[in-house]
Amino acid sequence: MERTLVKDTLNKVGKTVTLKGWVNTKRDHSKIVFIDLRDRTGLIQTVGTGELLGSLKPEDVISIEGLVKARPERLVNPNLETGTIEIEAISMSVLSHSAELPIDLGKETLEVELPTLLDYRALSFRHPKVQAIFKVQAVVIDAFRRSLMAKDFLEFQAPSIINAVPEGGAEVFKVKYFDTEAYLSQSPQLYKSLLTTAFERVFSVNQMFRAEPSATTRHLTEATSLDAEFNFIESVDEVLDMEEYVVRFIFKEVQERCAKELALFDATIPLMSEKFPIIKLRDAQEIIFKRTGRDCREEKDLAPEDEREICAWAKEEKGSDLVFVSHFLTKKKPFYVYPDPADPEYALSIDLLCRGVEWSSGGQRLNDYDSIIKNVREWGLKEEDVALYLQAFKYGSPQLGGFALGAERITMYILGLKNVREASMFPRDMERIDIHLSAQ
Amino acid sequence: MERTLVKDTLNKVGKTVTLKGWVNTKRDHSKIVFIDLRDRTGLIQTVGTGELLGSLKPEDVISIEGLVKARPERLVNPNLETGTIEIEAISMSVLSHSAELPIDLGKETLEVELPTLLDYRALSFRHPKVQAIFKVQAVVIDAFRRSLMAKDFLEFQAPSIINAVPEGGAEVFKVKYFDTEAYLSQSPQLYKSLLTTAFERVFSVNQMFRAEPSATTRHLTEATSLDAEFNFIESVDEVLDMEEYVVRFIFKEVQERCAKELALFDATIPLMSEKFPIIKLRDAQEIIFKRTGRDCREEKDLAPEDEREICAWAKEEKGSDLVFVSHFLTKKKPFYVYPDPADPEYALSIDLLCRGVEWSSGGQRLNDYDSIIKNVREWGLKEEDVALYLQAFKYGSPQLGGFALGAERITMYILGLKNVREASMFPRDMERIDIHLSAQ
Repeated sequence: MERTLVKDTLNKVGKTVTLKGWVNTKRDHSKIVFIDLRDRTGLIQTVGTGELLGSLKPEDVISIEGLVKARPERLVNPNLETGTIEIEAISMSVLSHSAELPIDLGKETLEVELPTLLDYRALSFRHPKVQAIFKVQAVVIDAFRRSLMAKDFLEFQAPSIINAVPEGGAEVFKVKYFDTEAYLSQSPQLYKSLLTTAFERVFSVNQMFRAEPSATTRHLTEATSLDAEFNFIESVDEVLDMEEYVVRFIFKEVQERCAKELALFDATIPLMSEKFPIIKLRDAQEIIFKRTGRDCREEKDLAPEDEREICAWAKEEKGSDLVFVSHFLTKKKPFYVYPDPADPEYALSIDLLCRGVEWSSGGQRLNDYDSIIKNVREWGLKEEDVALYLQAFKYGSPQLGGFALGAERITMYILGLKNVREASMFPRDMERIDIHLSAQ
Repeated sequence: MERTLVKDTLNKVGKTVTLKGWVNTKRDHSKIVFIDLRDRTGLIQTVGTGELLGSLKPEDVISIEGLVKARPERLVNPNLETGTIEIEAISMSVLSHSAELPIDLGKETLEVELPTLLDYRALSFRHPKVQAIFKVQAVVIDAFRRSLMAKDFLEFQAPSIINAVPEGGAEVFKVKYFDTEAYLSQSPQLYKSLLTTAFERVFSVNQMFRAEPSATTRHLTEATSLDAEFNFIESVDEVLDMEEYVVRFIFKEVQERCAKELALFDATIPLMSEKFPIIKLRDAQEIIFKRTGRDCREEKDLAPEDEREICAWAKEEKGSDLVFVSHFLTKKKPFYVYPDPADPEYALSIDLLCRGVEWSSGGQRLNDYDSIIKNVREWGLKEEDVALYLQAFKYGSPQLGGFALGAERITMYILGLKNVREASMFPRDMERIDIHLSAQ
């Protein structure tokens, strides 16, 4: 008999169906056995004789034929989507046996520490709350793409292997590339910018690599970057508007398509005012000083505690979990940043912060060839290392800008996860590539 | 005035519009000047006085205000989408000046050799035929994803950095990873398979890396792989059906959304019979022997000339540009292949060929833990190198299969390109990463 998915049983009361899935939990009352069966669409209670179901173990894969029955009112389980029904098992066959489980997957929350969760990564994916994380992430990424396709952006595939590191080499991974040395890309920034000079509007979903020897809760050595770039802009405001549109689009999609997943984490999408507030770095630092007495007014960037404080301010004063911070120091930014004509010491370089942390960086970029080449020299870069970039801007290039969002961070901060590693299926850091590196 | 895109001028006859774009070509009759203006949506003829337009050079970026006028019948250009109209320029401003062009972008086909095309990669993207390649590729990739989302597949992000190379090490790039050595992934095969044991149906669009020291017309060191994998299958036929569905979906989308791009290359989507034919390797070799006298009947694989021949056979005999070839030798395939129970020397491992070349490989995979671990040992692999994979299959794992398609190859063979490098925005090979490596 054709397989019925768990989610489709609700409208099949009185019918006989065949379900296939994993034994999520088992409650054995000897003569009568309850199995919560799990498939990709959810959980359902199955009840059968001890003879039929008694030998099953958690994570056995079974095919079960049974009658869909409405539960009596007093036995309805409000915590289960299929809690109004159950399956009365008629026959069952085991498709694959599981070994004894090293961790308990049957609890509502997987009660293991992060290192254990990652040691059993392949197994932990089976827990509904872990699955929810990656369903939300898939929707975030899909929404990012669809928001930009609707605005006529072309998708491109950003390369990972690059021949030079114009933005500095300490935090980059080296690759042995035949007889020479190559690197792993930290960002598709130069590629997306140069592509605008031909395609006008481009985006990509790509892996980016950072060899930062740090082990914070929010850094990965390999992460998924959501990059967009476009030109024929009149001002940087168009970049902010586009980013705000994309972020709102993502939140709307997550809200609509992930209600169940958000509920599992008691999560809500971030608070948004009518328009995302924007504040200059120096003004933000002044506010932080006034609010906390901590003087960061000469700093070139916001420290993690500053990011939290300015987000607190935006929430209290502007009713927004999101806040743009603009006007970072031109000289501390890459060669392509666009200095504010009104105050060239500061650049039209703009981060988006949300819930206490940076989600995105972006802004306007230099488009005038002479300014670009001048900066390449002032920044001490080799022209040959940015040869393709220079080529693009030498031959007619309108004003441009763009932004990049981190897929794992968005997922983490929407769901309120404690560590970004939870939002990466296969997190890489100094100590782990799937397995502990020290164990090698 | 707000920008009007070239494609939107057709329904604005009699109106004044502002267009922004690049000077694609210029024909200077001294007192009167014709400019073909290019934006991301197409080309349009603009006419103005020598005073207004005479100083323009190819690839200058301009904003031009003008009146949309219907052309007299005899001046209609049937080769241009906007050939029934032209813009009578009223005013013009230059947004960005271009330097003298090193290659002529104004011809219908870019008449340069491939090395020159790639030396000027950033510039060659501006040619409408080059743009068409990447529009088709974006549609191929988007269609791949949408076909699978419609079948309830979850998108995942495959990691590029891996800790071991269980499938053999000669053709893999090494990465210096802090104090240890890591590698670049040749395929997300193990990841996608292990994910099915939790999510059932997964797909990914990812970069894959092959350190093959070869410089053929169809190999890249970094390419875009379209991977799908799913379980709860009854037999390998479900894998073939799913792949056929995906490929047909891609072709339909390309046909519907890329009519203009296909026309530029005089390209048609591949010929399809009612059902893609399937043939076993040994039967294919027998046919090749009969058709050509070339005896490849003992070979473990099809050589390029064999692939061409079996495609010719499929077209002549089955009316199909596409043909599945199944039953490769189990021992010559990776440890996870599923031997045909009727003849275990051969595996349920299946390539899809089209227009003379392999587009995809796929098949059923072992799901039984004992069989997997037995093969891991027989194939001489280290268990710790496939630790996560083993973990997934140890705890209940239904029958599974899947396939992978190469995005650049599909693009290449749909459009009839001579070299796969043309179908990669930033092709990497032994000699080039954006610039010639020997020039470093």
